[in-house]
Amino acid sequence: MQTAILLYEGFTALDAIGPYESLANLPKSDTLFVAERPGPVTNELGNLRITAEAGLDEVPHPDIVLVPGSPVYAPQLTNTAVLDWLREADRTSTWTASVCTGSLILAAAGLLEGRRATTHWSGMAELGELGAHPTEARYVFDGKYVTAAGVSAGIDMGLALAGRIAGDSHARATQLLMQYDPQPPYDAGTPDKAPAEILAAARAALAAAAG
Amino acid sequence: MQTAILLYEGFTALDAIGPYESLANLPKSDTLFVAERPGPVTNELGNLRITAEAGLDEVPHPDIVLVPGSPVYAPQLTNTAVLDWLREADRTSTWTASVCTGSLILAAAGLLEGRRATTHWSGMAELGELGAHPTEARYVFDGKYVTAAGVSAGIDMGLALAGRIAGDSHARATQLLMQYDPQPPYDAGTPDKAPAEILAAARAALAAAAG
Repeated sequence: MQTAILLYEGFTALDAIGPYESLANLPKSDTLFVAERPGPVTNELGNLRITAEAGLDEVPHPDIVLVPGSPVYAPQLTNTAVLDWLREADRTSTWTASVCTGSLILAAAGLLEGRRATTHWSGMAELGELGAHPTEARYVFDGKYVTAAGVSAGIDMGLALAGRIAGDSHARATQLLMQYDPQPPYDAGTPDKAPAEILAAARAALAAAAG
Repeated sequence: MQTAILLYEGFTALDAIGPYESLANLPKSDTLFVAERPGPVTNELGNLRITAEAGLDEVPHPDIVLVPGSPVYAPQLTNTAVLDWLREADRTSTWTASVCTGSLILAAAGLLEGRRATTHWSGMAELGELGAHPTEARYVFDGKYVTAAGVSAGIDMGLALAGRIAGDSHARATQLLMQYDPQPPYDAGTPDKAPAEILAAARAALAAAAG
C-alpha cells in the first residue's frame, strides 16, 4: 500500500507529520513525501525543510493521498500541476485525505463537491464556497474522503484512518507507541473555547502568515 | 532567542515537530534544526528527511535546546559529539528540553543527575539508571530542564513551555492556531489504559524498531 503525502512551499509541518506517524506505521505500507519537484520543501515559517523523495509524475496512483494545509494555501487553489495530480490520483485512490486547509485544495480540485468535509476553523466558509458541505467535527469521513480540522486534528484523523485500514487493535498499538494521551496545558483549542482577544490574536497571526 | 532542535539518524519526526510548532511561533525567535553535519537527516522509519540547517559547532549557545527521542536512541547515549555539544549548550541555555527518549540522551550527558524527569513509558527504568529521578507525568519542569513523555507529549510540553516564555495568552493563541482540541478515536495512549495484548504488540514493535 502506497501513501503519498503532498508537500508544497509553505505547508504546515504538523499537518503532515501528525497523520504520517500513524500512516507510515501501517503494515506493508510505503510512505512517500511528494512535491512538484523532488528535493527539500520549506514550510510556512521558513525554517523547516522536509525532502520530497519523488515528483508528482513519479507517483501517479498512490493508495492513500494526504494533503496537508497551510496558512498560505491560496496559491495551491490554482496550481494546475497539483490539482491535476490530485484529480488523477483520486481516480484510483482508496483514501483521499487532508488536514487543515488541505481540504480547500481538495475542494479546488473538485473532489469534495457536495461532500461533508471539514477544515481549519478559519476556513469553513471558504470550504462551502468551494462546493463542499462544511461540517464541524474533528475529522469527517464521507466515503473514501477523510478531512481533518486544523493542524493537530490530523493526529486524530490519522489514527482513525489507521483503524479503518488495519483494525482497531493496530491503531491502538500505534496510539500507545505515540503515547497519545493528550493533556493540553490550556483549553483554547477552538474559537468557541478561546476568549475573544485570543481569537483576534490568532486571526491576526493567520492574516500575517498568509501574506 | 535561538532555539536549536537536535536531529540525529533515526529521530522520531513527531517528537521534533510537535513542540516545534509552539517554539517556532514564539515572538522574536529563531529556530534551527541542527545535527552533527548539516544536511538531510533520516527518521527511524527511513522515509522522512528533515534538513539540518547547521552543524552542532555552528550553534554552540542556543537559548533553548530541544532533543527529540527515537526507538533507536541507544547510539546517541555514547555519541561524544552530541553529548559534548549538549553539555556545552546547556551551560548557557535558558531551557534544556527533551521529548520521549530524548531525556535519556540528556541524562547520558549528565544533565539530569538527581532531577525529576520523564520519558517514553518504555524508558522510565533506564532514565533512573542514567541518574534522573523518573517521574510519571505528561511533562516535567525541574528548574530549566523540561522533559516530555512519549512522542505526542511534546505538543503539550511545547505549549506549556511557550506559556512560561511568552505568557499564557500567547500560548493560548498558538493552541488555537493549531486547533489543538484533541479527540483521540481510541483511549490506549498509556500502558495502564491499553489492554495487555496491545501493550505486548507495542513492545514488540519498539524492539523491532530498535534493531
